[in-house]
Amino acid sequence: MKKYIVAVVGATGVVGQEMINVLEQRKFPVKKLVPLASERSLGMTVKYKGENVDVQELKPESFENIDIALFSAGGSISEKFAPEAVQRGAVVIDNTSHFRMDNNVPLVVPEVNADALKEHQGIIANPNCSTAQLVVALKPIHDYATIERVVVSTYQSVSGAGKEAISELENQTRSMLNGQGQPEKNKFPYTIAFNVIPHIDVFLDNGYTKEEMKMIEETQKILDSEIAVTATTVRVPVFIGHSESVNIQTKKKISAKKVRELLKQAPGIEVQDDPASNIYPTPQEASGKDPVYAGRIREDISMKNGIELWCVADNLRKGAALNAVQIAEELIK
Amino acid sequence: MKKYIVAVVGATGVVGQEMINVLEQRKFPVKKLVPLASERSLGMTVKYKGENVDVQELKPESFENIDIALFSAGGSISEKFAPEAVQRGAVVIDNTSHFRMDNNVPLVVPEVNADALKEHQGIIANPNCSTAQLVVALKPIHDYATIERVVVSTYQSVSGAGKEAISELENQTRSMLNGQGQPEKNKFPYTIAFNVIPHIDVFLDNGYTKEEMKMIEETQKILDSEIAVTATTVRVPVFIGHSESVNIQTKKKISAKKVRELLKQAPGIEVQDDPASNIYPTPQEASGKDPVYAGRIREDISMKNGIELWCVADNLRKGAALNAVQIAEELIK
Repeated sequence: MKKYIVAVVGATGVVGQEMINVLEQRKFPVKKLVPLASERSLGMTVKYKGENVDVQELKPESFENIDIALFSAGGSISEKFAPEAVQRGAVVIDNTSHFRMDNNVPLVVPEVNADALKEHQGIIANPNCSTAQLVVALKPIHDYATIERVVVSTYQSVSGAGKEAISELENQTRSMLNGQGQPEKNKFPYTIAFNVIPHIDVFLDNGYTKEEMKMIEETQKILDSEIAVTATTVRVPVFIGHSESVNIQTKKKISAKKVRELLKQAPGIEVQDDPASNIYPTPQEASGKDPVYAGRIREDISMKNGIELWCVADNLRKGAALNAVQIAEELIK
Repeated sequence: MKKYIVAVVGATGVVGQEMINVLEQRKFPVKKLVPLASERSLGMTVKYKGENVDVQELKPESFENIDIALFSAGGSISEKFAPEAVQRGAVVIDNTSHFRMDNNVPLVVPEVNADALKEHQGIIANPNCSTAQLVVALKPIHDYATIERVVVSTYQSVSGAGKEAISELENQTRSMLNGQGQPEKNKFPYTIAFNVIPHIDVFLDNGYTKEEMKMIEETQKILDSEIAVTATTVRVPVFIGHSESVNIQTKKKISAKKVRELLKQAPGIEVQDDPASNIYPTPQEASGKDPVYAGRIREDISMKNGIELWCVADNLRKGAALNAVQIAEELIK
């Protein structure tokens, strides 16, 4: 079996570390792992297959001999270094938003549009975390009943905003429980401990946030440009796991039972839907796991062809690292 | 000025205590406050205007001479004792769900349908917390543009589930931060600390929860039976303050600017909507305050006549105690 030299750019970040975990857990045929990061991570190591691997400084020359480069170090790093990697013969799988809407870059969730990979020109984009889990849940419904419109509200964990955001939730929570007054705020504009914040990424002129527009445009690019989507993205005090309340309008009538049937057979998704036994997904239960989970599936009583559902996934895995490694797996098939 | 003997049933509960606070803060003309509760609260006192008032045991005879009785001690208590109070000449304002959908009982949010009070036969129902704030936000939009359909997803605080639920969030959070393993669960089917749970009240045959059906049916009863509503109600690890992501389809086109204008003039609601300065409501900021707050107002890009908004209120105040006292104020006008 052929083995590959794999670089992980942003190897010391939350998603970078998860990429390395997922490569190991899924037994990706790695000949050599090359963890790359900025200068300030020099001297650090990452754990891979029980060994400590030295983090190397990211430079254009880092990509000599690299077969596959997984990027997750911010859009400006991808902008600068992804072309350097491609020029040196690597295939880039980029987890940032930088190339996602580029017409020459396929945006891929393997369960949904693996075919789009065929057209890649060296760079493949990984979707936004909240989009990835959404399209996995929508795809089987769309194939059967043609989705016309989706209204989604999210409940997104702090790990989507990185390591410091995780510490911020922890520190703020401790401070509030100990009655130490107003805790420090850095990553979020309001206290996130015991609060919810309807604001992820920057605001745009149309009143939506960039995170919301990512969900809208990426869903259309991955699944179907004809689907109308609106989104409200909200940060909640959860460490790992994004949840989504999804309202779906279809062209053809579809029953809740049929949705359950379709999702049970679909790849990458598990149905957890037995209200009588309090079975439905929650982010804490989904944390550390691979599938997208769907529950609370019911026919929308406010219109003729509507479905309501609740979908949850580990945002660091299906929303980022896992999907990136799944793309790599498709590439080497 | 006429003064009234006011009973508070469930005086030691979270909402009961808030009712007493609100009576004091709004200078309701109370001749005498009569705090009532079950036998196990005997010996307790409540604070009212700087004095400790003894809690009395709830009995049918407790309502002799009572002018106004505010109930918030659970549906079965209201079922049993509200008629006893009415029979003795009291007007009952009931915060439980027991009488809300009764055709002979007005369900009132004063800013929306104060007129309905005229038809009362002794009992007036206070809506569910998540409904009260929603209809205050919808009313001005409905009057101007005729709302056809509403899709709402909620982010509800634990105080809506009472005192023990507040302790449960606090204890679980402490336990998890201290690494003491899986914390105890009593009030919620899953850990609520650092989690979200898409399940409030019991599940019904149509797949909705009772909380969701309350929002749907109560909105129709208070605002307009012609409005189609669907809801997903979700518990989040917040102590006080419910948030709602609301998608609104109107008959007539309405701009985001017009919605802001209308809400600014409307009673009971404050617009906090300046994305450029990170101004939008959060539950922590709304806690302890009276208004319903609206923000994130924008035109829905997924359809022709759609508005997205985010509304937040203190569920113990506008969602319960404040609305009940406002009803009492209307009654004595």
